[in-house]
Amino acid sequence: MDSMKWLTEEEQASWRAYVHATTLLEDHLDRQLQRDAGMPHMYYALLTTLSDAPTRRMRMTELAQQTKITRSRLSHAVTRLEKNGWIAREDCPSDRRGQMAVLTDEGYEVLVRTAPGHVTAVRSAIFDRLTPEQVQQLGEISRIIAEGLQPEGADLPWLR
Amino acid sequence: MDSMKWLTEEEQASWRAYVHATTLLEDHLDRQLQRDAGMPHMYYALLTTLSDAPTRRMRMTELAQQTKITRSRLSHAVTRLEKNGWIAREDCPSDRRGQMAVLTDEGYEVLVRTAPGHVTAVRSAIFDRLTPEQVQQLGEISRIIAEGLQPEGADLPWLR
Repeated sequence: MDSMKWLTEEEQASWRAYVHATTLLEDHLDRQLQRDAGMPHMYYALLTTLSDAPTRRMRMTELAQQTKITRSRLSHAVTRLEKNGWIAREDCPSDRRGQMAVLTDEGYEVLVRTAPGHVTAVRSAIFDRLTPEQVQQLGEISRIIAEGLQPEGADLPWLR
Repeated sequence: MDSMKWLTEEEQASWRAYVHATTLLEDHLDRQLQRDAGMPHMYYALLTTLSDAPTRRMRMTELAQQTKITRSRLSHAVTRLEKNGWIAREDCPSDRRGQMAVLTDEGYEVLVRTAPGHVTAVRSAIFDRLTPEQVQQLGEISRIIAEGLQPEGADLPWLR
C-alpha cells in the first residue's frame, strides 16, 4: 500500500465534511418536499427541468441527461409522477422509438404551490449562510467536478 | 409569489452545478464500489467509520450520528453487512437496550483490499482537479452547510 497516493489531512477533512453536508442536505430537502408535496427532491428536479423546457416537454433521454440520472431511474420516477397526474408520456414525433415527458397543468400547479417553500429551504440551508464569494466558489468547484465526471465515452448514467 | 426571495442567477447556477456534481459523484462512487467490493458508497463509509473507532466498534446510535443517516437506514445496511460477515452486532455492556456494531477481521480485510481503488477514484474525481485553495474552500463551505443543518432540537436523521 506504500505506493498509494492517500489523501492529505486537509483533503480528508474536506472530503468528510462534503459527504456529511450532502447527506444531511439530501435528507433535509427530501423531508421538506415529502412533507409539502409528497415527493422526493429528485422528482421535484424532474418537474422543474420540464417547466423550463419549451412547451414544457422533453425527450426522456434528454431529461435523464439534464438531471444526470439513469434511464431506469427516470422511467421509474416518471411512472410514479404519471400516476399523480403531474407528468404525461407522449410518443416522439420525430423518432418512432423515442418518448417525450410532458409537464401537465396539474404538475405545473404543484410546482407553483411548492416552489416558495422549497426555495426557502434551499436558501436557509445554503445561500443565507454563504458569502457571495463562497457561492461563486461552490459553483466553480461543482462545475469542475461535474465536468470531470462526464468525459467523452464515459459510462454515464443516462447512457445506461 | 412576488414577496418570495428567489435565488439570484449566480445562486441558481451554483445550485444547479452542485446538484449535478453530487448526483454524478454518487453514481460514480457507487458504481466503483459495487464493481470492486459489491457494496454502495454508504456501506463503505460505515466500514471506514468503524475502522477508525477504538477496538473497531461503536454504538449503533453513534454510528448513525457519525455517518449522518437514519437509524432505520443504518439497521438495514448493518443487516446486509452482517450477512457478508463484515460487521457483527454485539450487546452494549453499559446499556441493556443498546447495541454495538463491530467491524470483523473479514470486514477489515475488505477495506484494506478496497481502499486503494476507492481513494484513487475520489482523488481523480475531486482532489486531482482542485487547487489547494479550492480544497480548503470546499471544506469550509461544506462545514458551514453541515453545521447549519444540525441545530439543537432539529429533526436529525439519527434521532428518528
